[in-house]
Amino acid sequence: MEHRSKNIGLLLAGGEGLRVHQSRPKQFVEAGGRTVLGHTLDAFAATPDIDLVYTVCAPEWAGLAAEIGRQTCGTRFGGTIDGGQTGICSLRHGIEALGAAGHAADDIIIVHDAVRALVSPEIIADCVRVCREKGNAVAAAESRETFLQTDGGDCAAEIAARSAFRLAQTPVGFALGTLGEIFDEAEARGFFADARGTEDTESLVRLCGALGRFPLHFSAGHWSNFKITEDADLELFRRLCAGRSR
Amino acid sequence: MEHRSKNIGLLLAGGEGLRVHQSRPKQFVEAGGRTVLGHTLDAFAATPDIDLVYTVCAPEWAGLAAEIGRQTCGTRFGGTIDGGQTGICSLRHGIEALGAAGHAADDIIIVHDAVRALVSPEIIADCVRVCREKGNAVAAAESRETFLQTDGGDCAAEIAARSAFRLAQTPVGFALGTLGEIFDEAEARGFFADARGTEDTESLVRLCGALGRFPLHFSAGHWSNFKITEDADLELFRRLCAGRSR
Repeated sequence: MEHRSKNIGLLLAGGEGLRVHQSRPKQFVEAGGRTVLGHTLDAFAATPDIDLVYTVCAPEWAGLAAEIGRQTCGTRFGGTIDGGQTGICSLRHGIEALGAAGHAADDIIIVHDAVRALVSPEIIADCVRVCREKGNAVAAAESRETFLQTDGGDCAAEIAARSAFRLAQTPVGFALGTLGEIFDEAEARGFFADARGTEDTESLVRLCGALGRFPLHFSAGHWSNFKITEDADLELFRRLCAGRSR
Repeated sequence: MEHRSKNIGLLLAGGEGLRVHQSRPKQFVEAGGRTVLGHTLDAFAATPDIDLVYTVCAPEWAGLAAEIGRQTCGTRFGGTIDGGQTGICSLRHGIEALGAAGHAADDIIIVHDAVRALVSPEIIADCVRVCREKGNAVAAAESRETFLQTDGGDCAAEIAARSAFRLAQTPVGFALGTLGEIFDEAEARGFFADARGTEDTESLVRLCGALGRFPLHFSAGHWSNFKITEDADLELFRRLCAGRSR
């Protein structure tokens, strides 16, 4: 019988949400009658290509995260994984836990920010497709605005060629074995030894950049696949939820 | 008696809306019980700093545009101006018409895309403030996504320094006299003689770039101040409208 590698969603829900002035982290805030994480998981549940979904979060939120996971993904919910101090540490914990759970090196891991609640099944499916075809994938959107190159301060000194850039979002797809190699290399190069490289390693894409792991292959993104990190984002998202259910 | 220069909104509503599959241009499409242009003009009407507002549009839409202008801005609505073939030509017609109407060279013109309907009074007021302090202003947003530099195709070859860029939106503010100089220089350099430079001159900011008119000074923008140009944008905007009125 042929081995079929799985497509596994790995939701990063470890953020503290300090920027949204709420008593709870933003991924667990209510919007339109459910949590932000619940909306995000709905999109994964609605993507037939996704076989399993895990959520990485702080231990104190694991109970709620597990409940949301089961409600949205049913038997396709794999469980929760304890997160770390930063997003990239949470991802590392997630990778280690998936390996410890016996998932294969050629299983495709679709890493996604839990606070990108407007992600669509189409964006997730395209990330899976590109990752399987090209070896990796990052959901990326073209900018619709003109890029102004700053003078280092509050002025634009030049116009940059818009077509030369994409805006990196999530999901990001890699085989589990490749993710293990990436984190092993980052560890060997001392990326996690101290605070250096915090900006470089704030996300998987930036970590790949810091390690010179190119090319990264674009899958379909969309400007509406934004992170809910500020009060204004949450307010807009709540309005979108209210408008949808009419 | 001291001369006080005015702050004049100039709404660009000349687009044909071919990308949104509607029978009418997108600025005149209904959303939440009124037109997109009506929502945009609400923000100008709610900005005390704005003394007058004009709308540039195709002659066949001038009747509706005038009605919307009066409904939203009352006696602060200056009138409609016939647009041109492209956005930059419409802007040029607008500048000429404002001069012909007797507005002063030191009046501040706040140029805005009519399809950026989520612009706020705060964004408009900040554009006025920075323009008066610094001589010009462009509403600009910091990107919250990582910039990937493409290899010219479907891959990222490098990570660009996010902090080195801003995303240019509108409103854009200049004194009327300065706008006259900009268009005179563009005319003298043959920018409007043929199709060359279409990309360079697709907006006022890009025209300034093509002419080397720097620095441009940043005023507050926001990612939600997006252009409603595609079906998905219009759908999101309608959901936002429905959610707001609940």
